[in-house]
Amino acid sequence: MTADLLFPSEPAQRQIARELFAHAADQPLICPHGHVDPALLADDAPFPDPAQLLIVPDHYLTRMLLSQGVPPARLGVPTTTGEPVETDGRTIWRTFADHWHLFRGTPSRLWLERTFTDVFGISTPLRPDTADDIYDALAAKLADPAFRPRALFARFGIEVLATTESPLDDLAAHAQLAADGWGGPGGRVITTFRPDSVVDMAWTGWPQRVEQLGAIAGEDTSTYAGYLAALRRRREAFSKAGATSSDHGHLTARTVDLDTADAAAIYERGLRGEASHTEAEVFAGHMLMEFARMSFDDGLVMQLHPGAVRDHNRRLHMTHGRDAGGDIPQPTDYVHGLRPLLDRFGNDSRLTLVIYTLDETAFSRELAPLAGGYSAVFLGAPWWFLDAPEALRRFREAVTETAGFYNTAGFVDDTRAFCSIPVRHEIARRVDAAFLAKLVAEHRLHLDEAAETIVDLAYRLPKRIFKLERH
Amino acid sequence: MTADLLFPSEPAQRQIARELFAHAADQPLICPHGHVDPALLADDAPFPDPAQLLIVPDHYLTRMLLSQGVPPARLGVPTTTGEPVETDGRTIWRTFADHWHLFRGTPSRLWLERTFTDVFGISTPLRPDTADDIYDALAAKLADPAFRPRALFARFGIEVLATTESPLDDLAAHAQLAADGWGGPGGRVITTFRPDSVVDMAWTGWPQRVEQLGAIAGEDTSTYAGYLAALRRRREAFSKAGATSSDHGHLTARTVDLDTADAAAIYERGLRGEASHTEAEVFAGHMLMEFARMSFDDGLVMQLHPGAVRDHNRRLHMTHGRDAGGDIPQPTDYVHGLRPLLDRFGNDSRLTLVIYTLDETAFSRELAPLAGGYSAVFLGAPWWFLDAPEALRRFREAVTETAGFYNTAGFVDDTRAFCSIPVRHEIARRVDAAFLAKLVAEHRLHLDEAAETIVDLAYRLPKRIFKLERH
Amino acid sequence: MTADLLFPSEPAQRQIARELFAHAADQPLICPHGHVDPALLADDAPFPDPAQLLIVPDHYLTRMLLSQGVPPARLGVPTTTGEPVETDGRTIWRTFADHWHLFRGTPSRLWLERTFTDVFGISTPLRPDTADDIYDALAAKLADPAFRPRALFARFGIEVLATTESPLDDLAAHAQLAADGWGGPGGRVITTFRPDSVVDMAWTGWPQRVEQLGAIAGEDTSTYAGYLAALRRRREAFSKAGATSSDHGHLTARTVDLDTADAAAIYERGLRGEASHTEAEVFAGHMLMEFARMSFDDGLVMQLHPGAVRDHNRRLHMTHGRDAGGDIPQPTDYVHGLRPLLDRFGNDSRLTLVIYTLDETAFSRELAPLAGGYSAVFLGAPWWFLDAPEALRRFREAVTETAGFYNTAGFVDDTRAFCSIPVRHEIARRVDAAFLAKLVAEHRLHLDEAAETIVDLAYRLPKRIFKLERH
Repeated sequence: MTADLLFPSEPAQRQIARELFAHAADQPLICPHGHVDPALLADDAPFPDPAQLLIVPDHYLTRMLLSQGVPPARLGVPTTTGEPVETDGRTIWRTFADHWHLFRGTPSRLWLERTFTDVFGISTPLRPDTADDIYDALAAKLADPAFRPRALFARFGIEVLATTESPLDDLAAHAQLAADGWGGPGGRVITTFRPDSVVDMAWTGWPQRVEQLGAIAGEDTSTYAGYLAALRRRREAFSKAGATSSDHGHLTARTVDLDTADAAAIYERGLRGEASHTEAEVFAGHMLMEFARMSFDDGLVMQLHPGAVRDHNRRLHMTHGRDAGGDIPQPTDYVHGLRPLLDRFGNDSRLTLVIYTLDETAFSRELAPLAGGYSAVFLGAPWWFLDAPEALRRFREAVTETAGFYNTAGFVDDTRAFCSIPVRHEIARRVDAAFLAKLVAEHRLHLDEAAETIVDLAYRLPKRIFKLERH
Repeated sequence: MTADLLFPSEPAQRQIARELFAHAADQPLICPHGHVDPALLADDAPFPDPAQLLIVPDHYLTRMLLSQGVPPARLGVPTTTGEPVETDGRTIWRTFADHWHLFRGTPSRLWLERTFTDVFGISTPLRPDTADDIYDALAAKLADPAFRPRALFARFGIEVLATTESPLDDLAAHAQLAADGWGGPGGRVITTFRPDSVVDMAWTGWPQRVEQLGAIAGEDTSTYAGYLAALRRRREAFSKAGATSSDHGHLTARTVDLDTADAAAIYERGLRGEASHTEAEVFAGHMLMEFARMSFDDGLVMQLHPGAVRDHNRRLHMTHGRDAGGDIPQPTDYVHGLRPLLDRFGNDSRLTLVIYTLDETAFSRELAPLAGGYSAVFLGAPWWFLDAPEALRRFREAVTETAGFYNTAGFVDDTRAFCSIPVRHEIARRVDAAFLAKLVAEHRLHLDEAAETIVDLAYRLPKRIFKLERH
Repeated sequence: MTADLLFPSEPAQRQIARELFAHAADQPLICPHGHVDPALLADDAPFPDPAQLLIVPDHYLTRMLLSQGVPPARLGVPTTTGEPVETDGRTIWRTFADHWHLFRGTPSRLWLERTFTDVFGISTPLRPDTADDIYDALAAKLADPAFRPRALFARFGIEVLATTESPLDDLAAHAQLAADGWGGPGGRVITTFRPDSVVDMAWTGWPQRVEQLGAIAGEDTSTYAGYLAALRRRREAFSKAGATSSDHGHLTARTVDLDTADAAAIYERGLRGEASHTEAEVFAGHMLMEFARMSFDDGLVMQLHPGAVRDHNRRLHMTHGRDAGGDIPQPTDYVHGLRPLLDRFGNDSRLTLVIYTLDETAFSRELAPLAGGYSAVFLGAPWWFLDAPEALRRFREAVTETAGFYNTAGFVDDTRAFCSIPVRHEIARRVDAAFLAKLVAEHRLHLDEAAETIVDLAYRLPKRIFKLERH
């Protein structure tokens, strides 16, 4: 049945899609952008109970139940306010199973169902009355050493997995991984440089974090010059821990080309807690320019994913803190926002800039023309709410005619849900197979070219664009 | 032939779509949002001639002919300027038939064609040379008591129909309906509270209407406190006439949380005719907060459909007044506009907020994430220009992956064209059947779940979300 | 194989698509909007080498290679800076062939492949190892008189081709064409009035061009009244050279209704080089009103295609000048921008306004409602980045339900690539055949109506809307 998952039901296209997918299905997984905790693989400890593994940390799941009136604390999500939290895995699991129908038609449904069958070998459909059986079966598997993180890593066919760390992170987990032969440059598990927390002045505690940055980097961050030096130092440390890219999550895609004196002045006001909201935004835009310049020098691929209004759900933020699933996208202006950066670096292949979006309107109007007209620009895979079959299809339909396939950077799973990595890649490959099958069936592309293209999309392109060729 | 209307032609999908549609086809019609004149059902008088019934009041039809140079007066639409208007039904009908080809590919074409065949049993295709025959056949049917409004209501299988009234309406038609056993709480025909005309200060005559509001409510609306009290009184009266929801048509989705003194100050300037355009907008945004608060207390479902630039076509407005088909959509910002309201009420299931849009760009970017992340929010059906097969499909494709099916509120016909109600619901059900059939055929959903889902979408969800369970 | 190019693979739909396309396939080509150099047809000289014909002037091709790091100069695109340019046709051809895979899934791929097969009879697939053979075969054909421009024009079945000229153009090529019986009113090759260069004050050299305008028109353009008179004179001259339309490429769709004194004041500041950027924009918006008024009087169809940020790629602009493929679209506001113009002229069929877009979000939200509600407005074909199969399909899906087919203006090839004209029209006809086939297969339209519609779209509508009925 699931052999044809996501393939068109028209027999000619389905046959072509099967054939194309067969070329991609067994390619190793390239995971250049994700949020798995590196300690998971450094420690290689058994996973906790099924609910703690599969439900509690997954915002896709907890926000859907919240949308129907089930508060995250009932699903075990920790509160920052001391409100009681459900801690019994089985109780959480049952609550979740009672609401499983909410996920019909969503990618979460596919991800979780395929995790049950493919990772854990459980094919009983989840329903309120089967919840306990599935919970027990999962718990039994998790006790088996074959289900420890490193064993699964190997079974999943992951060639390289990038995690994401703040410049304040001491990279101890990555050092452990390197010591075990799993990490470091060219290793199986590498880090990514994600400086948002030391860039965004409007984020509470910024001056303290900047001071920590100085301490960990051995630079004096009381001056703007020292701040830049500290960032460069940390990038060096990240590169030594295998990083090949940086990652930047801004509210907008605005880039600003301040002169050094102006940037320094805002920086100093920021340290004194005197920077306005506008200055904070300008500084963030300026820092994108600085990071592009650093990438130009040190070769880290620069990833930009703007457009999420963070913590839009204020109550959720108050009760559960940041990154609890309360972000909502807003429109994003790439055409004017990126212009200062592209004026400087857009035509030089020494910079690789991978751009993501949550705003589909930019696909055909701005992003495909930019990627199809600037050497530095590549389009990142559909992200967060758009990492889903229909949205993946719309992405290909909207961008290919202007940017082709070869200005897209390949799929990224962007996930902290380790067990869902294989199915996420599989779905992207299936959607690409279906898209290419339509082109072939409508005589828009030859079969042999489509076969080459799908392997490029699944494996060769992300490996090259994210500079993972040593792997 | 029309048994497969709107179903995919690929045989596997078509077969599944047939099967799914069969589950939904005979479900009663839930019509929680529409604009049928309640006097129609209160009086139960015979319908006028075919042109007055089917063409003159239908903006979809008159605006299309206007777009090709045929002025609405030639189709019998009354002017406000004294310009001559065609009054002969047959002449209007012939003019319309001469332009029938303009509607190829539009929902109006399907609605009217199916009204002919299914409601009136006329299967002759409309053409200039068949116009008179069809006119005569329709006129003959309209003389038959079986084609009076209440008889059709029963034949159509309508379980409940909500009309829309201003707070200034005395609800006499609804009282008549209640007296006849057709209206009142739990009745077949109920009202909806639509206060726009007493909220929008920029709408000519607002101070006079506010005074009328005071008179009908028995409150002193010369003060802001009295104004709020009068609105609460009218909501009580509407609830007694069966209303389960309010309806708000604003230019934007902006909500504003003024303190009472500021709101009162603007209110008073408005009464004196001194409020600026900006103040009128702020006041309207503030009143959305107040209406949310009232809904929170009295349980009326709150419907918001922003984004239409009213009377964009100024000449049409000058010659034919408001609501003559000259509105044009504009982009709508939900993510920032709704934030004040959602900060207060978004996480509480005691508020039900159904949001509509004319701006498809918000489907995947803002509306699905909001509905999938706030307990109070549900997505209204595609509205006005978007109530059409391709747009209905795009809605499901764009929102389901993030919000699922169960954060959508079900189809609303939103129509004053009484005879078109069955076909509008049927088309929505067919489009949902086709969408679900694709999911099943591509192994993304099991057939039994799809069958349950389509009945939920057609019947159970709108009944629950619009609080029509007493019906 | 290519008999079914772009047709759905589902057999029922494919069969209908074939049948519909057969009605349109042999209709003459109506080309009311394009950028072929009229000297090409006036001189009827042999084409230069294959690279100079097919690659060097085609921005779709050169920008894609630029996006992968190949500078335009390596493809023979002249520089404005004196940097060296590749001039050897074969070398350019080889460089291009090495990157042919970049175009998979793009319309350029289809256009070029079909130009090889259909125009030149070469069916060898382009690959690095076949590049030389294809180059030689093309060069041999180009030496044959049957491949001169006028012979191809006849072979292509072009009924009328409009080129585009500035008011400063002396129309000498068109005079030559008229003398040869090819041009003038009702002729095979006509001009289009494109005044952007004398309207946009922010474009370097504007005062000088306005002076030239006065000289060529025999009017004193040192005054605003003289400027308007000169434009009217040039429109007369263009009409005598066969023009039936004007063409306006603005940054936005903003129209402004200045009074004459204000317009004159800005005009004079502009001549003195003192107009601000804002004034230049206001003046351009005002001139759209003036051009609408002129169209109202002289009957030229008014075409508006806003929304391209010109020369977004500054380095490309510096090295290769304007129109080198560095434009990027931005969001376009039609609903407010066009309102002043539509207030004056929108309801009068004496104005024909054809609106194009690069911003798909406007299709269903603004453009279809405007075209379906104003007599003057018609929707132009998807343009530039949107002239591609998927985008053409999305256009029909998004606009037909509100505007129908008969408020769309028909396909325009908009190209300077003479040899690609037939395949561009063919692709649009195929996409329309596929779209209509779906409507027929899903019982939304009768086959005979679809057959009539496709001929209207391919031939009758553009001929009527662009006032080419004398042809």
